[in-house]
Amino acid sequence: MELVSRNRCFEGEQAVYKHASDVCGVDMTFAVYLPPQARREPVPVLWYLSGLTCTHENAMTKGGFQKYASEQGIALVFPDTSPRGEGVADDEAYDLGIGAGFYLNATQQPWQPHFQMYDYVVKELRDLVLDKLPIMDRHGITGHSMGGHGALTIAMRNPSLFVSLSAFAPIMNPSQSDWGRKQFSAYLGEDESTWSQYDATILMSEAGWHGDILIDQGADDQFIDLLRPQAFAEAATKRRQPCVLRTHAGHDHSYFFVSSFAEDHVHWHAERLHDH
Amino acid sequence: MELVSRNRCFEGEQAVYKHASDVCGVDMTFAVYLPPQARREPVPVLWYLSGLTCTHENAMTKGGFQKYASEQGIALVFPDTSPRGEGVADDEAYDLGIGAGFYLNATQQPWQPHFQMYDYVVKELRDLVLDKLPIMDRHGITGHSMGGHGALTIAMRNPSLFVSLSAFAPIMNPSQSDWGRKQFSAYLGEDESTWSQYDATILMSEAGWHGDILIDQGADDQFIDLLRPQAFAEAATKRRQPCVLRTHAGHDHSYFFVSSFAEDHVHWHAERLHDH
Repeated sequence: MELVSRNRCFEGEQAVYKHASDVCGVDMTFAVYLPPQARREPVPVLWYLSGLTCTHENAMTKGGFQKYASEQGIALVFPDTSPRGEGVADDEAYDLGIGAGFYLNATQQPWQPHFQMYDYVVKELRDLVLDKLPIMDRHGITGHSMGGHGALTIAMRNPSLFVSLSAFAPIMNPSQSDWGRKQFSAYLGEDESTWSQYDATILMSEAGWHGDILIDQGADDQFIDLLRPQAFAEAATKRRQPCVLRTHAGHDHSYFFVSSFAEDHVHWHAERLHDH
Repeated sequence: MELVSRNRCFEGEQAVYKHASDVCGVDMTFAVYLPPQARREPVPVLWYLSGLTCTHENAMTKGGFQKYASEQGIALVFPDTSPRGEGVADDEAYDLGIGAGFYLNATQQPWQPHFQMYDYVVKELRDLVLDKLPIMDRHGITGHSMGGHGALTIAMRNPSLFVSLSAFAPIMNPSQSDWGRKQFSAYLGEDESTWSQYDATILMSEAGWHGDILIDQGADDQFIDLLRPQAFAEAATKRRQPCVLRTHAGHDHSYFFVSSFAEDHVHWHAERLHDH
């Protein structure tokens, strides 16, 4: 992999790398923050999956996670939200195609050859950072909006790969939302039985999660009807899923919301990642 | 009112009083904890409503609230859960009649003359403690199980009277639960339109609450099917109600659960009661 940039940030270093992805068939870019503790020994890692229209850069520059990761001794990985570049299919809409990979493996054309973000995150990028960086095989995962959907669904489908789980205003029930139905139809086809593996509310009802979950939601989130927190809250509570569901007055869907609770999420993960 | 007992407890004093209740038509007993700050000036007050089979005594002796109330400078009031004594109707079941007042005003016989716990708490006992004790007209309310139901419904119906609200494993949707339907039928009659004013999930859907709400629930609560947290969670989340809903692995319905989170609740209320 090729170093694109590296910057000192708090006591650690914020880097951006590019690498040729076999899974996506194009070059992919990701960001990684290494806390000072990583200079001496491998550290646990928190994955942060971004939302619609984002790249690896948004949370890296606007989330404010690095201060807490530096204090707590955990690495941060910020993947891109889709493949991009020459030959990658796209759509005029902001919520389909480039910037809108939905952390799934597309089975339909023209998306199938490149839009394999599920396997990219769970397998290829995971193997790469474990191989090339001072990162311990001990993972937490979080994300915002579409990335919160990614975090919840990837964690619930791969419980042995993740120790800790949280999300910021995730898309919680995409198979019943306009942030989901259009994309799943395009990427996965009209057979809705193939969609449930990518729906956090359905996965919660059917399988749940082995640990506790932290989810923050803004009460004034302008996209809340698309997120469907009530569906996930009902499913999680009915299952008796250990969790903390917080609805915050006045907060919207922006990075002003995400950064307001970044410290809580880093601490949530750090407590669990450091608890051997 | 007559002093029944008084004990130093942490830096303050735990007292029990008896008084003739006009509303309930019998003598009623309640407990009050005054923190050391109340020796100098009136302090805000947190009401704690107890659950089925309890008296004023259970939370006073097993809840462990006094330490935090002493530190935070707030009073605690523990009312009884029903009228009791000569002439008060009762039932063989533990969940109807004495010890099971459900914080409502009964309209049906033989309950109507004495079972007026809603008015007793909201009006008579409130006026009494404000008149007789160094308590400021600034109130928070919490409770456990049937008392959590009481706290949620009383607060949502009287938003101007309460600053802060929380509950421990409340009965959240009694009109759809065996902890509710039998009692509402007996106390209120078969016309279910009279029940909704005493159902926290319905009140949440229709009115909500002006502040944020903290609710703790044990994941291993043996009565969880009767509490219906999923109904309240769905209603609150759908409404975008500012709240924190926590489900705790391993915790049951007992006072071991309540006392485990007593500090969090006292702090929750103290932050809001002291914020002028």
